[in-house]
Amino acid sequence: MKALVYDGPGAKAWKEVPDPVIAHPTDAIVRIDTTTICGTDLHILKGDVPAVVPGRILGHEGVGTVTEVGSSVSGLKPGDRVIVSCIKSCGHCSNCRKQLFSHCLGDEGQPGTGWIFGHLIDGTQAEFVRVPYADNSLHKLPEGVSDDEAVMLSDILPTAFEIGVLDGRVAPGDIIAVVGAGPIGLAAMATAGLCGAATIIAIDPNDSRLARAVDFGATHTINPTSADWLSQALALTDGAGVDVALEAVGIPETFGMCLQLVRPGGNVANIGVHGKPVELPLQDLWIRNINISMGLVNTNTTPMLLRLVAQRKLPAGKFATHHFSLENIMDAYDTFSRASETEALKVVLSRGAHE
Amino acid sequence: MKALVYDGPGAKAWKEVPDPVIAHPTDAIVRIDTTTICGTDLHILKGDVPAVVPGRILGHEGVGTVTEVGSSVSGLKPGDRVIVSCIKSCGHCSNCRKQLFSHCLGDEGQPGTGWIFGHLIDGTQAEFVRVPYADNSLHKLPEGVSDDEAVMLSDILPTAFEIGVLDGRVAPGDIIAVVGAGPIGLAAMATAGLCGAATIIAIDPNDSRLARAVDFGATHTINPTSADWLSQALALTDGAGVDVALEAVGIPETFGMCLQLVRPGGNVANIGVHGKPVELPLQDLWIRNINISMGLVNTNTTPMLLRLVAQRKLPAGKFATHHFSLENIMDAYDTFSRASETEALKVVLSRGAHE
Repeated sequence: MKALVYDGPGAKAWKEVPDPVIAHPTDAIVRIDTTTICGTDLHILKGDVPAVVPGRILGHEGVGTVTEVGSSVSGLKPGDRVIVSCIKSCGHCSNCRKQLFSHCLGDEGQPGTGWIFGHLIDGTQAEFVRVPYADNSLHKLPEGVSDDEAVMLSDILPTAFEIGVLDGRVAPGDIIAVVGAGPIGLAAMATAGLCGAATIIAIDPNDSRLARAVDFGATHTINPTSADWLSQALALTDGAGVDVALEAVGIPETFGMCLQLVRPGGNVANIGVHGKPVELPLQDLWIRNINISMGLVNTNTTPMLLRLVAQRKLPAGKFATHHFSLENIMDAYDTFSRASETEALKVVLSRGAHE
Repeated sequence: MKALVYDGPGAKAWKEVPDPVIAHPTDAIVRIDTTTICGTDLHILKGDVPAVVPGRILGHEGVGTVTEVGSSVSGLKPGDRVIVSCIKSCGHCSNCRKQLFSHCLGDEGQPGTGWIFGHLIDGTQAEFVRVPYADNSLHKLPEGVSDDEAVMLSDILPTAFEIGVLDGRVAPGDIIAVVGAGPIGLAAMATAGLCGAATIIAIDPNDSRLARAVDFGATHTINPTSADWLSQALALTDGAGVDVALEAVGIPETFGMCLQLVRPGGNVANIGVHGKPVELPLQDLWIRNINISMGLVNTNTTPMLLRLVAQRKLPAGKFATHHFSLENIMDAYDTFSRASETEALKVVLSRGAHE
């Protein structure tokens, strides 16, 4: 088969590799019908994630068709259309039994690490993928959900909802700020209403992203390159700050903005993937009764979110701004890595599709 | 009357000052029968809290007898025996209406600041104190609760329970670590069982404090000067860390220890008062699904904790290790400030009592 292979920092190629095979009775092989590229893939390509070794097939998002199942797989059969979840879950370790799938202790990849596709085992930017713990790590797709919609359930919608909205304890009537209007930030805006957020302030230096944020649920937008960005945000509250500030970028500056935005008694939910430490001004914060959450998605809300997508209650399809055929993945990477020019949110790659 | 007056960094005196008078219809005047000294008072004396101006009467803990009430006070009358809560609460601002008394917006002291006694208005280390918002800021004492017990409800018991145990989301069966076995850390150990903590690990470099921790509910003790302190703690878990790590010191090192102790999916509850920023290694933590809470006590659990003290279900009296008469407060400060030698937890000062 063909796959997108990481060849060390700065290098990747779409090339012939061996087909995956069933390695354990709990595995399934899935033919990839649709996949996409995540910001994390760009980090890997820069060499920022040393656990990814040369030769690894990238990608942790995908929709496909089961072609083969291991002997102990009971809930799936060849021909089933499925979402590949970005998180493995063995379903019976102590972490899985408390829904902490993000830290599944199953042996695949590495015990305690839920994200393994395109990281510690071969991923979904390929014609086929081996999926460990298939009964738990795949979600069967109902009729009426398109691949464009379904692939947003591999990672971005559950990540934004669980790590942003739920961990940030968004509650009915809340005023929230989402710092960063990329795919994850927009997915947080799109799902915040599920918990009753009433005012959703999108904060991003890119005006075209801000304009798009309104389509995903933002009620107000602020460009933080304005000197008075913080006053603009506070003016939308009682002056004390937002109930929940969601960090959807992953750099110290945006994390610091969230600490400035949140009211006493409020929550900061970090969704961003960080590469550097941040300074936490505990000398000012200890007295403010705030809460700071962070984490990797558990995907325990994926079935619920899938139901809402099927009911057309979430704008999942809107994230797909660019389409490529899988064999043109090198072009797709180029378009995605120049997102500020191309205005790409998610570039969708499909089997047999043409540009 | 006589009172302990802050005279600027490093200086204090027990001296004659004017008696407090009713300033607002919601005030009460309370004769102080018992008060105590907090670690925060020592910080103030070092000049670490610039909002405290010379001339301020210190102290935010006390038990006393109402001598006079303002015209709108309805729940109290002269002769009532009361606990003075360390937090003001007007009872009708938007923060009070959501039980965020720590950030009461009432005008007294400063709107938005709940801790005002011995900080922004005169405090309880005096023969009398004016108590604003008396109906909300005082708690009537039932028969059978001693002053030694009751004064621990002004601050340390609700602080440790609310900011440590509740904000840390201690749950039935949890393994928790309390870093710091001073009064606040011990109060966290003493109240963690209310939420079902099963294993309570006390961590402190002072062996005599560790020995005492066992009397307050610790099931295990670890001296962090041992090179293998962390392995010792992890060995008491499944190897992944504690469910909740409570910080009860207020320095970067102990906060960092909590980040090392907590398991993926666990909570760090900061109770300590910090004077410096800490480095938060978000590059490692973002993926760990941890939650960090911090704050000033709301005192909304004070009535419940008082009920438990009255039922002899909390060892409140055990915190009182040293007794002085109020006029010997200078000696009491000396004993408290040398706690590592004197083994003082709380030094209790009583009207008319003798050493």
